[in-house]
Amino acid sequence: MTVIALSGSDGPDLRALMAETAIELGQMLDRLLPKPVGDEARLFEAMRYASLNGGKRLRPFLVINSAKLFGVAADAALRVAAAIECVHCYSLVHDDLPAMDDDATRRGKPTVHVQFDEATAILAGDALLTLAFEILSSTETHADPQIRCNLVSAMAKAAGARGMVGGQMLDMIAAEAEFDIGGVTRLQRLKTGEMFAVACEAGAILGRGDMARHQALHAYAHDMGLAFQIADDLLDVEGREEEAGKRLGKDDAAGKGTFVAALGTERARAQALMLADQAVRHLEPFDGRADNLRRVAHYVVRRRA
Amino acid sequence: MTVIALSGSDGPDLRALMAETAIELGQMLDRLLPKPVGDEARLFEAMRYASLNGGKRLRPFLVINSAKLFGVAADAALRVAAAIECVHCYSLVHDDLPAMDDDATRRGKPTVHVQFDEATAILAGDALLTLAFEILSSTETHADPQIRCNLVSAMAKAAGARGMVGGQMLDMIAAEAEFDIGGVTRLQRLKTGEMFAVACEAGAILGRGDMARHQALHAYAHDMGLAFQIADDLLDVEGREEEAGKRLGKDDAAGKGTFVAALGTERARAQALMLADQAVRHLEPFDGRADNLRRVAHYVVRRRA
Repeated sequence: MTVIALSGSDGPDLRALMAETAIELGQMLDRLLPKPVGDEARLFEAMRYASLNGGKRLRPFLVINSAKLFGVAADAALRVAAAIECVHCYSLVHDDLPAMDDDATRRGKPTVHVQFDEATAILAGDALLTLAFEILSSTETHADPQIRCNLVSAMAKAAGARGMVGGQMLDMIAAEAEFDIGGVTRLQRLKTGEMFAVACEAGAILGRGDMARHQALHAYAHDMGLAFQIADDLLDVEGREEEAGKRLGKDDAAGKGTFVAALGTERARAQALMLADQAVRHLEPFDGRADNLRRVAHYVVRRRA
Repeated sequence: MTVIALSGSDGPDLRALMAETAIELGQMLDRLLPKPVGDEARLFEAMRYASLNGGKRLRPFLVINSAKLFGVAADAALRVAAAIECVHCYSLVHDDLPAMDDDATRRGKPTVHVQFDEATAILAGDALLTLAFEILSSTETHADPQIRCNLVSAMAKAAGARGMVGGQMLDMIAAEAEFDIGGVTRLQRLKTGEMFAVACEAGAILGRGDMARHQALHAYAHDMGLAFQIADDLLDVEGREEEAGKRLGKDDAAGKGTFVAALGTERARAQALMLADQAVRHLEPFDGRADNLRRVAHYVVRRRA
C-alpha cells in the first residue's frame, strides 16, 4: 500500500546512505555506551537495548549531513549525532512506559520495560539523556568549549520543558484538550520538530555557520519535521502493523489531536507534500551540497514505517 | 529521640545559614523554572511542585559554601546550586514512582505522581534534569565557556549511569543481590556520594581551584556523603515518621543492603561519626574559611529528618 503519493524520488542512494550512517552511528554508540559489566550491568544492558536497535537513525543522518555543509570533521559530527540519538531513544523508552503510551512493542521487539522492567526502563532513559550531555561536553567532541557549550545549550532547550518534553505533555492531555490545527501544529513542533531542528542546527554550530545558514537549516527542519509528523499520523491510520513494527491505530483510539484528525486524510496528505517541497526550498543557499537533506524531505513523506 | 550521638556542635548558626540559603535558592529556582502558563502548564506546575517544596537544600549549601572558598560571584554559585538541586529533585520524583520505591509522601506532602499523575511525574523529572544542563551551559552562569563545559561534564558524570542513576539501579537490585559492606559502600557512593562530590567540586570549578584543593573537597564530600547516608539508614530504623515527613522502615522491609543491615546499629553509628570527623580533616587547607562545610559534616550525622 502506498501511504502517500510520491513528490519527487529519494532515489536508491538515500536508503544506502542512511544504512551506512546507521552502521557508523551504531559503532559510535557502542563505543560511548557503558559496557554491560558490574552489579549494575542490567542498567547498561537496557541502555544498549534501547539504543542499539536498528532504528532509522534519521536525526543522526540530519546531523551528519548538515555538518558536511560546513566541512565539519566526521568524528565530531558522529559524536554529536550519537548524543542526539541518545536523547531520541530515551524519549522513546519513557514514552512507551505503561503510565505514558503503554506500548509493548517497538521496531518489532518488546519495549524496554517489557524486556527488562519498568524501573530499569525509567533509569535507562534517565541515563541515556544524561549521557547525551556528557558526550556533548567532552573535549573529544570539539576542541572549542564555546562550541561544546552551544551544543549543550541547544540540545537542552530542544529536549526540555519548552521543547520535546513539553510536547509530550501536550500529547498526554490531547485527548481532553481537543486541539485545533494550530494546537496540533504547536504540539508536534515541540514533540518532534525541536529535535529535528537541533539535529540540523548542530551542523551549523559545529561548523561555525553564519546566522543566515543557521536560519535556513532551522526553517528546513521545521517544515520537514511537520511533514514527517503528518506522514506518521497517516501511517498510523493507513499503515500496516507488520511494516511499522509497532501497534497502530492507537492515536485515533485515544482520540488524540493529530493532523489527520484535524485535517482529514486527503488534506493532511496534501499538506505533508507541500511542507516537504517548502522544506527543500529553504536549502537553496547550499546549492547541490544539500542534496542529501533534500532527499530526506522527500523520504519522510514516502516512508512506510 | 536522639538519632545519633553528638560529635561536636553545628551551632545555631548553621541552621540559620541553611535556612537563608534555602530562601535564596528557592527564589533562584522560581526565576529559572518555566512559569505555569499555556496548555502544558500541568508540566510546569509539577516541576515547581517537585522543586519549590521546602527541602533542606543541602547540595546547594555545599555549592555555595565551596564556591565561597574561591571568591566566586554569589549569583554564579546560586545558579549552579539551582542546577544541582534540579538534578536532585528529578531523582526524587523518579525514585518515588510506583515502579521504583512507590512512595506516596515526601517532606510531609503527596509525591508528584500522587499529586499529579505518573505520566506528569515522569515528564517533570525528565524536564528538571534537562533544565539543569540548560542552566549550566548558559552564559549567565559564567562568562568562560570552558568553565561551563567543565560544570556540564562533571554534573553529567555524577548524575549518570556511572554515578547516581547507576547507584539507583544497584538500590533496585539490592534486595536480591545481598551486598556486603563493600557493595553497600559502592552503592551509596554512586547513589548519593557522587552528587555531593560534584556539589563541592562545583565551587572549585567555578573558582578555577588548583588540583590539591579540588581533591581536598572531593575527599571531604566523599566521607561526608557516606556519613550522611549512614545517618539516613539510622533514621530509617530509628527515626519517627512525623519528623522525617516520609514513610520509614521501608529499607528494612524490602531487605535492602544498607549500612545498618551490613554493620548493625552501633557500628553504623560509630562509622558515621568517624567519617564526619575524617571529612572535616580534609578541609585543613582552607583554614577557618571552611567552617560552614565543617558544620555541615557534623550536622548530617545529627539531623533528625
